[in-house]
Formats: sequence, C-alpha cells, structure tokens
Amino acid sequence: MIYGGIEGGGTKWVCAVGSGHDDLQAIATIPTTTPVETIDRVAEFFAAHPDIAAIGVGSFGPLDLDEHSPRFGTITTTPKPGWAGTNVRSLLASKLGLPVVFETDVGAAAFGEGRFGAAKGLETFCYITVGTGIGGGAIAHGEISHGLLHPEFGHMRIPHDRRRDPFEGCCPYHGDCFEGLASGEALRQRFGVPADELRAPEAWELEAEYVALGLVNVICTLSPQRIILGGGVMNATPLLSLVRGRVRLLAGDYFDTPALRRGIVDYIVRPALGDHAGVIGALELAKTRSEQDASHDGGVPRPGLVDRRETMIDSGVAGLPVANRDRDA
Amino acid sequence: MIYGGIEGGGTKWVCAVGSGHDDLQAIATIPTTTPVETIDRVAEFFAAHPDIAAIGVGSFGPLDLDEHSPRFGTITTTPKPGWAGTNVRSLLASKLGLPVVFETDVGAAAFGEGRFGAAKGLETFCYITVGTGIGGGAIAHGEISHGLLHPEFGHMRIPHDRRRDPFEGCCPYHGDCFEGLASGEALRQRFGVPADELRAPEAWELEAEYVALGLVNVICTLSPQRIILGGGVMNATPLLSLVRGRVRLLAGDYFDTPALRRGIVDYIVRPALGDHAGVIGALELAKTRSEQDASHDGGVPRPGLVDRRETMIDSGVAGLPVANRDRDA
Repeated sequence: MIYGGIEGGGTKWVCAVGSGHDDLQAIATIPTTTPVETIDRVAEFFAAHPDIAAIGVGSFGPLDLDEHSPRFGTITTTPKPGWAGTNVRSLLASKLGLPVVFETDVGAAAFGEGRFGAAKGLETFCYITVGTGIGGGAIAHGEISHGLLHPEFGHMRIPHDRRRDPFEGCCPYHGDCFEGLASGEALRQRFGVPADELRAPEAWELEAEYVALGLVNVICTLSPQRIILGGGVMNATPLLSLVRGRVRLLAGDYFDTPALRRGIVDYIVRPALGDHAGVIGALELAKTRSEQDASHDGGVPRPGLVDRRETMIDSGVAGLPVANRDRDA
Repeated sequence: MIYGGIEGGGTKWVCAVGSGHDDLQAIATIPTTTPVETIDRVAEFFAAHPDIAAIGVGSFGPLDLDEHSPRFGTITTTPKPGWAGTNVRSLLASKLGLPVVFETDVGAAAFGEGRFGAAKGLETFCYITVGTGIGGGAIAHGEISHGLLHPEFGHMRIPHDRRRDPFEGCCPYHGDCFEGLASGEALRQRFGVPADELRAPEAWELEAEYVALGLVNVICTLSPQRIILGGGVMNATPLLSLVRGRVRLLAGDYFDTPALRRGIVDYIVRPALGDHAGVIGALELAKTRSEQDASHDGGVPRPGLVDRRETMIDSGVAGLPVANRDRDA
C-alpha cells in the first residue's frame, strides 16, 4: 500500500508518496500561489502515482477541524491573500478522488516526530515551529490535541519589555503576541534583515528570551514530556542553546525535575525528522488512519477520514474537474 | 460501596464520605497545620466510617505524580512551611490503611466537573481556580493531563504593564507570573485589603485583565472546549463578567468560533459543583479507579491506586502508628 503526504504551507507545499516514513518514493515542492492553482499542481504530482490509498494533509491554518462543521477542512482567518475561507480538504478530496485525512501542519509534524522522531515513545509532548510564523502541535495521551479549535501557541501573550524592545510586534490580529514578537517576520521587521542574515548577539538574546517565555507557558499548561523546537529561525547557531538557558532560568527552582535543569538538552530538542516532519507525519497519518479503518468491522470510516463518495457530493467546489481516479467506481 | 474524598489545601482539608457525588454521607473541614497533625485529624474523621473501600485525594502542590518515582505522592517545592518534601500519599495510606488515588486538587476538581458538573460530556477542558494562589487542572481526550509534571497554570508569564501596575508580583519563585500578579495574595499585597473587601472598580479591571491574559494563553495551548473558573477571588461580583469581556477582546477576530464571541457566557463558566468540586472529584476518582480495578482480570492494581500492603512496607514513614483497619488482614 502506498500513501500520499502533503505539508501545505504559506510559501510552499511539500508532497510525498511512499509506503511509510522510511520508504519515500517521490517528493516534490510546489510554490504556494492561489488555492486552485496550487492544488491543481499538487493533484498533478499525485496523478503520477495511481496506487495511492489515502492522502494525509498537514495544512497551515487556522483551520476548522470540527468534522461536524459544514466548513470542516477550511482555512479560516489567515491573512494570506486568497486563502481565507478556502476549504482545502474539499478541494483536495475532489481533485484527487481519494480519502483525505486533514490536520494542522504542526499537528502532523508532532504526529510524525512521535512515531519515528524525537518524541518516540512519549505520550504527551509538543512540536513548536519558529519560522515566518510561530505554531505548535501537541500530543496528549498519545492523541493529537484538538478541543475548541486546535492549539495556537503563536498567539499566546508574553511579557514585552518596551524599554528593551520598543518594536510593536507584527501580528495583524494581536500586535505583540508570541508570534508578533518572536517570529521570523518579527525579526525581519524589527531588525531590517531576514533572520538568516541577523548576526548581532543582543538580537539573538532578545529572541531567546521571547522563545523561552513561550516555552515556559507551554510547560505550565501542557506539561509536555519533551518539546521539539523546529522552524527556520531555530537554525540560527546560538539560538537553541540560548533558549535552553533562558528556560532554565525562567523556570527557576519551582519545577522539581531534572528536565528543567541539567537535563534541558534532552528536554528541548530539534526535530529528528528535520524539515520533513510535517510531510512525513501527514503521510503516516493517512497510513495509520487507513489501517485503523481496515481493521474496523463494517468498514465505517473513522472521523477525519473522508469517504470519497461523500466528498464528491459535499465538497461544495462547483465546476472543478474531479480527477477520474475514484477506484470505487 | 462507599469511598472517601479529600481535598488537601494550604489552609484547610475537606474530607467527605459517600457512595458517590449525589450521596455524601459526611463531610468535614480540618484546618491545615503540620502534615502529621493534619493527617492524624483526617484519619480520625475516616475512622468513623469503617466501610470505605478507597480514598481519593486531590492535594495542593506541586506534586510528584510519577508513579515510578521514589517520591511519588510528595509535595515538592511548596513555600508552605513544613510541607515541602512531605509524602502526603504515603502518610495517608499508612494512617488510613486504604488504597489511595492521588491527584492534584485542581485535577480532581476538573475530573469532578467533567463527570457531574459544568463540563459534563466534554473531552477537553480545564478547571482554573483563582484563590490565594492560582492553579489549573486539564482534561485532554477524557483523561487528567499529566506529562513532565502536571499543569501549573499559575506560573505562566503574562504581560505586566509596570506603568499601570508597579506592583512587583508576589510569587516567591517568579515574582510577576500569573499567580504573582492575579492571585488573592497578589490583590492583598497590592491593595492592602483582602479580595473580599476590595471595591475599587479599577482594581477589578486590572484583575480581569490579568485573568483574561492567563485564560487566553490556556486557550492558545490547550484549546479547551470550556473553561471552568472557580476560586474565592472569582466570587467578586463583577469579575467573571469583566474577564469574559477581556477574553473576547484579547482573542480578537483571530479565533473563528462563537465560543469566543457571543458564546463566551457558556464558554467561561463557574464550577457547577461549587466549592466542593475538589473533594467530590477526589471521591469519584477513588470510586472510578476501584471500579476499573474490579473489572480487570487478575485484580492487578492500576497505576495510581496504591495497594495497601505495598504501602505499609514502602511508606517510608517510620514510627507512625498504622490505623488497624487493613481489611485484608
């Protein structure tokens, strides 16, 4: 059996095909343009692999992940032009004619890291990405966390010392929330250069302070057994080490655990699946869900795995050609 | 079958006996003094009810809840004089000669509210108390959340505008963390009167701002389907309403859900079990765990439910009289 994985991002979509994380048979990167054009190109990629059983998608958000909602699968309030209100799940299911498992990009990455990466064997952990934006996915008791919506780590409020850092923050919704202060976009706006050209030590100290404040709040709420910290900004050489030091200091002596003292290097870690955590996690989500469904009596699809016939009817994407690949026909 | 429930707090311990939340046969409040004296008095109360099958405890913390830890059941870093390092679980199990299910006070309260109270039927929600201190318990996917440790909502870092509020915060570990700024103790130190004597509207506006900031961070991390907001400070008349308004404003248009708009009154709610959420939750934890154990083949105790014989040997509480109530003998 082979499966497809998609990590749908604001700048690029990464697509992969394979039987599992250790057997990727093809991978492609497609630049994000309009929803229809992007998904057309995604469909082209997958059309070359006619034996795919199901597709897993980890998408940028925020998303409507409520399977009972008429908008299940929709990107809701993104400032990304042209994408707000797009039902990515319906579009994909229609174009691909395949079952689609739909999740946030960071939820999929967390799932992948838990199965095969830096959180293998753990029940409760989280994956945080500090890139253009800041996002996080959490696994609690072995399951991807959803609730009212899904986690939105980037929009926590953290202390902002305006004497040290007069920058107002760049979040169009909240100004100086965690993402507004510490994302790659915040660095670019505050310092006038992209993160990978930023050298000033005091800039990285400030960034470490903000990232550590965000992490401490995650520790205080989710109590993760490990934090996986990825994203392009985290590649800056001193940052991870500075963040670990600041988290130790901010936690202080209150938390009586080696993980927040000497064990911090094994507590806040880089993704083991690197930049591919999202797409691998998405592919493995499709595989896992398909296997679960196959083992269910009666073959009733589990929530989240879209039955392809239902999708054809309910997709609400009028006039879009449906790829002639429905192997139920 | 009857069970015991204990909510162990920094100022009082509440003990209850009954067959379930709707059949409490006795309830007592014992002031918190030294660990040995307090637990002696707790044991006296339960000695009058010889048919108790198991005891559930929701204790103040922070706690070591790792059942593989040699300190499982210990209050770790509390500033409460005499209590840091006390193994409450061992002490109780030794004195009572009964299986003990051990949890945080707020974890037990969340469990109770989920079974019979304001979060009935929900899978993912949290219970927050704003009293002398600030604590929170979370349920994710139907289970009480533990991970590295347990949630510590009170020690999140939130924005602190020192021009508006020059008070440094009262947390002995972190100064102006959430608890340091918004707890009853913070109100008392900042305004010079206890919360229930505080009238100034601007004081309650400031308090609402801090509580709302904490809640927004909980929403961004746990994405609870509902937030139950209890504790003595929340009884101040305008506070809950002000908090709801501030959460709406802070969330802004980013979160595309009625719960953070007009539905806020059903999203941030008072505890349905009132001041008894903790003790009822603890009693129900004992009951649930006992019933689960009884339905297990072979009768192997589940993690968390202490076998009374093991407790006698491993309690590590030398010289303490063991109540002669081991009905295994």
